[in-house]
Amino acid sequence: MTITITAFEHSPDRGRGLARDMRVRWALEEVGQPYDVRLLSFKAMKEPAHLALQPFGQIPTYEEADLVLFESGAIVLHIAERNAGLLPQAGATRARAIAWMFAALNTMEPPIFDRDMVRILERSEPWYQTRLAALEKTIRMRLSSLSNRLGDGEWLDGPFSAGDLLMVTVLRRLHGVAILPEFPNLANYVLRGEARPAFQRAFAAQAALVARTSC
Amino acid sequence: MTITITAFEHSPDRGRGLARDMRVRWALEEVGQPYDVRLLSFKAMKEPAHLALQPFGQIPTYEEADLVLFESGAIVLHIAERNAGLLPQAGATRARAIAWMFAALNTMEPPIFDRDMVRILERSEPWYQTRLAALEKTIRMRLSSLSNRLGDGEWLDGPFSAGDLLMVTVLRRLHGVAILPEFPNLANYVLRGEARPAFQRAFAAQAALVARTSC
Repeated sequence: MTITITAFEHSPDRGRGLARDMRVRWALEEVGQPYDVRLLSFKAMKEPAHLALQPFGQIPTYEEADLVLFESGAIVLHIAERNAGLLPQAGATRARAIAWMFAALNTMEPPIFDRDMVRILERSEPWYQTRLAALEKTIRMRLSSLSNRLGDGEWLDGPFSAGDLLMVTVLRRLHGVAILPEFPNLANYVLRGEARPAFQRAFAAQAALVARTSC
Repeated sequence: MTITITAFEHSPDRGRGLARDMRVRWALEEVGQPYDVRLLSFKAMKEPAHLALQPFGQIPTYEEADLVLFESGAIVLHIAERNAGLLPQAGATRARAIAWMFAALNTMEPPIFDRDMVRILERSEPWYQTRLAALEKTIRMRLSSLSNRLGDGEWLDGPFSAGDLLMVTVLRRLHGVAILPEFPNLANYVLRGEARPAFQRAFAAQAALVARTSC
């Protein structure tokens, strides 16, 4: 079974591993599944061939025999369901790990992603500082809740799961931002995620690609 | 097995069925599972008893014996996995239905939800019109992609699924907004969702509650 994912030909993050293919790479590395990568230009992402796989013209996609999937959360869940290592077997703990996947993408990611977008797109607008402060207030509130729940735990709910994988990819967007260090247990949680060999392999793979395509 | 969910004691939408408990009610109605509702004031949502169930102090939660879940997407997925009627059995079609669940919550909902928040919270800000126009541009782009994919299909991918259920709850937030009628197939898709008897029962239940608690 050959797995093929898509990624940016020229990632806007220049190798920081913030594009959403990183999650899928990391999940595949955790479960030991090899994969191929097909690179797409911004133009190709909006063409009919890709829109047939991804209706919104985004990356990543996941192809495996006749299955085509989109949405990084759904792809990571599919990988976690098909392979051991990313979801507990038992009912309640499995359901809770999936709840953390949704929490990462629906509760934590929107304000953190918006903050990056505002910094890129609205920097010269008169409202820039006000907007940024409002988003950072929301982010701080969410981080505070997450920090309280994590406490001195290693991962969010028992062993490392797909919920932690997604949460770490979301929190990594705050690297270099003063907010994350206000919550040392979360900062350390991110470092624990990044220290996993599977993360390292996935990160190196996307960074190597950026180095090559930038030449 | 008794299922208990939480909902707003005083829903900010005043019975329009936009609070996130609506998704869970609808899913439970689709599969024929009875449930109890525990109402929470905004104050109670931020107290330790509720934070133990929902780390971010939000609604809904889902309790069933010793299982406690949060995140409406995760709750709907749990209901769909445990009962027939909301997810196909087979591998590829099931995975694609789950992809639509994530697409509803991660790709479609953020700009649509933000639009409502901006209209409530930023109406007197100097950037209001610009922000609103930018969000509506994003919403229009996403709706256009979704409309192209739906075409003249009844549902997004084969029979009605949890992906349609979540997508309809997200698009309902655009009722009364001029954007949705620009895509007649999507407007009709929402109407088809709302016409389902399970939707009607769920909607009536939350509306009755608002009528009662507003007296």
